[in-house]
Amino acid sequence: MKILSQIGEQKLIQEISKILNSKNPSVLCGIGDDAAVLRFGNKKLLLTTDALLESVHFDWQNADPFLLGRKSLAVNLSDIAAMGGKPLWALVSIALPSRESIKKVANFHRGLKSMAQEYGVSIVGGDTDRSPDGWKITVTVVGEADRPLLRSGARVGDGVWVTGCLGSSALGWELLKKEAGSRKLEVGKKFLSAHLNPKPRVREGLILSMERLATSLIDVSDGLHLDLTRLCEVSRVGARLSLEQIPLAKGFLALCKKVRKDPYALALTGGEDYELLFTAPSGKGEKIRSAFRKLRTPVTCIGEVVPRKEGVRVLNEKWHPVKITKKGYQHF
Amino acid sequence: MKILSQIGEQKLIQEISKILNSKNPSVLCGIGDDAAVLRFGNKKLLLTTDALLESVHFDWQNADPFLLGRKSLAVNLSDIAAMGGKPLWALVSIALPSRESIKKVANFHRGLKSMAQEYGVSIVGGDTDRSPDGWKITVTVVGEADRPLLRSGARVGDGVWVTGCLGSSALGWELLKKEAGSRKLEVGKKFLSAHLNPKPRVREGLILSMERLATSLIDVSDGLHLDLTRLCEVSRVGARLSLEQIPLAKGFLALCKKVRKDPYALALTGGEDYELLFTAPSGKGEKIRSAFRKLRTPVTCIGEVVPRKEGVRVLNEKWHPVKITKKGYQHF
Repeated sequence: MKILSQIGEQKLIQEISKILNSKNPSVLCGIGDDAAVLRFGNKKLLLTTDALLESVHFDWQNADPFLLGRKSLAVNLSDIAAMGGKPLWALVSIALPSRESIKKVANFHRGLKSMAQEYGVSIVGGDTDRSPDGWKITVTVVGEADRPLLRSGARVGDGVWVTGCLGSSALGWELLKKEAGSRKLEVGKKFLSAHLNPKPRVREGLILSMERLATSLIDVSDGLHLDLTRLCEVSRVGARLSLEQIPLAKGFLALCKKVRKDPYALALTGGEDYELLFTAPSGKGEKIRSAFRKLRTPVTCIGEVVPRKEGVRVLNEKWHPVKITKKGYQHF
Repeated sequence: MKILSQIGEQKLIQEISKILNSKNPSVLCGIGDDAAVLRFGNKKLLLTTDALLESVHFDWQNADPFLLGRKSLAVNLSDIAAMGGKPLWALVSIALPSRESIKKVANFHRGLKSMAQEYGVSIVGGDTDRSPDGWKITVTVVGEADRPLLRSGARVGDGVWVTGCLGSSALGWELLKKEAGSRKLEVGKKFLSAHLNPKPRVREGLILSMERLATSLIDVSDGLHLDLTRLCEVSRVGARLSLEQIPLAKGFLALCKKVRKDPYALALTGGEDYELLFTAPSGKGEKIRSAFRKLRTPVTCIGEVVPRKEGVRVLNEKWHPVKITKKGYQHF
């Protein structure tokens, strides 16, 4: 009898999708993208859910209840951003140990509320249960999109683009895991914040959709290489990235050296950046740069969409493919 | 420092609601009813979520993966029914131990699918995680309602009505907890099924809404007495029930005697019946009976809405109030 750890997350999701698959004209996009797209009246609804589990996604040694509240909602807002959508409402289902302090639970919800307010989202309901062990938080967000951007629209010749900087959250996580010394480095603060308090790129996703700048879109939650591979698979294309072009935050290389981490391993396979990764026709470069300048969000062209048979490759400055060993975060 | 078990579920939800509370014209009904009601375009959306946790809501000694899949969706469909709504789509977020068998996980999803198909619902996405301990299942359902029925519309003089029979699920649970002997009683089958495979009253809720038969509506998930008390609180009324009128399934009294359980304790405070409890103007009795005859669903008038100061009371055949000790299922 096979168990989950033998088949892995990807295969499990395939199996589940096969069972749940159904045809319904109201479902414009179902399982397999960052959010479902549903026809409702004359509008399009987006629907997504994501869970954070204690001792899988976080542990209280390294987490703060207020920031965890923010992050629980942020990861879901990022999925709406990854469809070029606008988030509207959220539900929060939470299971808590009976012996948990009310203050901690209240602070978690204050964090949720602060993130909701920043993004104009109303938390309209949920469910509260006793947990026999750690915290389990499941957030669902409903949004809307006039022109949802799917993972599947990339075309050969398109540029591959990414917002912000990559690897910062993974470096923050490395600092958190270390002793208090390196955690308190002044230069480390922004990396800790990238990990503990990510900012979903909702305005950026909306601009890409409204101004028709992108052909496909995904958020970088499980690492650039893995998420790009997923986008390429459903778009039936390959991609060639230039290692040199990958945007890294100021101080990133020096701090990686200090904590003895390979900066490109973090940038390519570290998860939880929650930046947007998109493809765009080659002629749109100027428009994209100008739109993102207005938002004050960095945006970088890091490569090109190529035919599927070439696969997903990252080339170093000598145009040699970089070997990617760890493929990004996967459950099981 | 206070902990959750000291304040209880009701107070915790109040605290959370206070923190999350926000004003948004699109939110027609937020935290506090069976589902949120949201204005979207020219339509009304319903949104609800409910979790089932291993060793809190079920354990594998007494559960079957296929039926658990059905129930995970059913309890959410019941929340949509309790608004007089039509369910449309569902998301399933599930956390599983790495060593779980694929067959069991597949059977769970087959159960989900079968319930979804019976009620015309599409499962359009979700989230899969590794769990450090038991199963955690969170289902979200989106529905729609032209005329949502809230908990808050009951008026003094209305009749109090309930569909189906009460206490059957609680009796099923008692049988499950006993040794295999009483579990295999032929007469017990329908009670086991009431507990393990509940049928959400979606058609019944829709009829109440479409034909404007009810003034308020809730589903009986935590026990008749507790759920009626909740409805009365938000409607600012009281209620007087007649113990004799409470509908019990055929064979219920005899089997309760056999397993030494107080039948009225099960019927009044046993949870998970997933029947609909509603109030209706006194003149609607015939219309209600005729509508439910067509659906072949039993429906019973069990009491009357009275002024708030009279509270929620259940009277026995001598018109003496019955003492309710256990108040129904509450977490923490």
